[in-house]
Amino acid sequence: MDERLRAQLAFALELDKEKTILRQTHISGYARQENDAEHAWHMAIMAYILREYSNAPIDIARVILMCLIHDVVEIDAGDTYAYDAQGLATQKAREDAAKERIFSILPEDQKKELIALFDEFEANATPEAKFAHAMDNLQPLMLNDHNGGKDWRVHDVTEEKIYRRQRKTKEGSEKLFDVIDEIIRKNIALGNIRSADGDARND
Amino acid sequence: MDERLRAQLAFALELDKEKTILRQTHISGYARQENDAEHAWHMAIMAYILREYSNAPIDIARVILMCLIHDVVEIDAGDTYAYDAQGLATQKAREDAAKERIFSILPEDQKKELIALFDEFEANATPEAKFAHAMDNLQPLMLNDHNGGKDWRVHDVTEEKIYRRQRKTKEGSEKLFDVIDEIIRKNIALGNIRSADGDARND
Repeated sequence: MDERLRAQLAFALELDKEKTILRQTHISGYARQENDAEHAWHMAIMAYILREYSNAPIDIARVILMCLIHDVVEIDAGDTYAYDAQGLATQKAREDAAKERIFSILPEDQKKELIALFDEFEANATPEAKFAHAMDNLQPLMLNDHNGGKDWRVHDVTEEKIYRRQRKTKEGSEKLFDVIDEIIRKNIALGNIRSADGDARND
Repeated sequence: MDERLRAQLAFALELDKEKTILRQTHISGYARQENDAEHAWHMAIMAYILREYSNAPIDIARVILMCLIHDVVEIDAGDTYAYDAQGLATQKAREDAAKERIFSILPEDQKKELIALFDEFEANATPEAKFAHAMDNLQPLMLNDHNGGKDWRVHDVTEEKIYRRQRKTKEGSEKLFDVIDEIIRKNIALGNIRSADGDARND
């Protein structure tokens, strides 16, 4: 086997570790936490099914690729929960080191290509990155809502925090943000998300 | 929320069940069986990384989509192990019913689109379907080899059966079939795959 193919297969095998990185979100039915690989797969199909709702025209193949690889760095850096302030403070440095190590397993041209794609997602400036971020937000929100908001209650997530994160969704899709807004309002009313005035929790 | 978007989100939620469909293959390290969602995600990225080895020019976006959705029917039909003769006899009927139920959750145009993609994969006639099948074969083989061939030993997989399945890989990629052939020969020599003459098992 030549060196190029050997490197590509080593990367493919390395990716397998993403199946062991657990997220805070639970799968539907709340039997267990979902992992990064499952999350990425789910987001990628959702991007394809919902592509008509992107604010701007998008190259859907690039969106799907971003969805598939956007969490690869968590193999080393772990999952940083969206509402974990301490983890978020060191996230960038941990993920930069991981990005360099993991993509360096690939041949140089593919390392550059995948890092460019990863960085495009992170920068969140292109229509493709914005739509991929919309999926990154909508997918766990959909599961949390389906699971009766338990993940939000466990982490005492507030209205302010959830809207700060979901602003990214609006940049990718106004239409899907409207759905998200409806879901958030419902869960605030149910006491699953703590409202701005802090007294809406009823559990 | 309009009916079209409601249907698309219902389909997105239904997909979540694929995370509970376990395959016979174990993740690297053999800690547990992998599930269909993880397998599909892994195949999809591998298709992108290894696309240069397709025998024929391919639309890689279509290959990736096929990889992502090729096991959706198993939500109802369950995973049929590649070397389970009894399961294979009823697989088609079970999967046809599942295909109709699950894709019917989508709006009609998307139902047609995804069924066409699913059927293209199943028919295995286009270069895209052949390359997707190569990934469907290479991904578990890579994991089984990395795990010391334990899944093959547990299921007493024979050289004849594994080559019958892997013929599909050759149609998608001669180059990747050579890698697979090398891995199979090594595992026959190690006694992890039972050789044609039946006496190579040493465990």
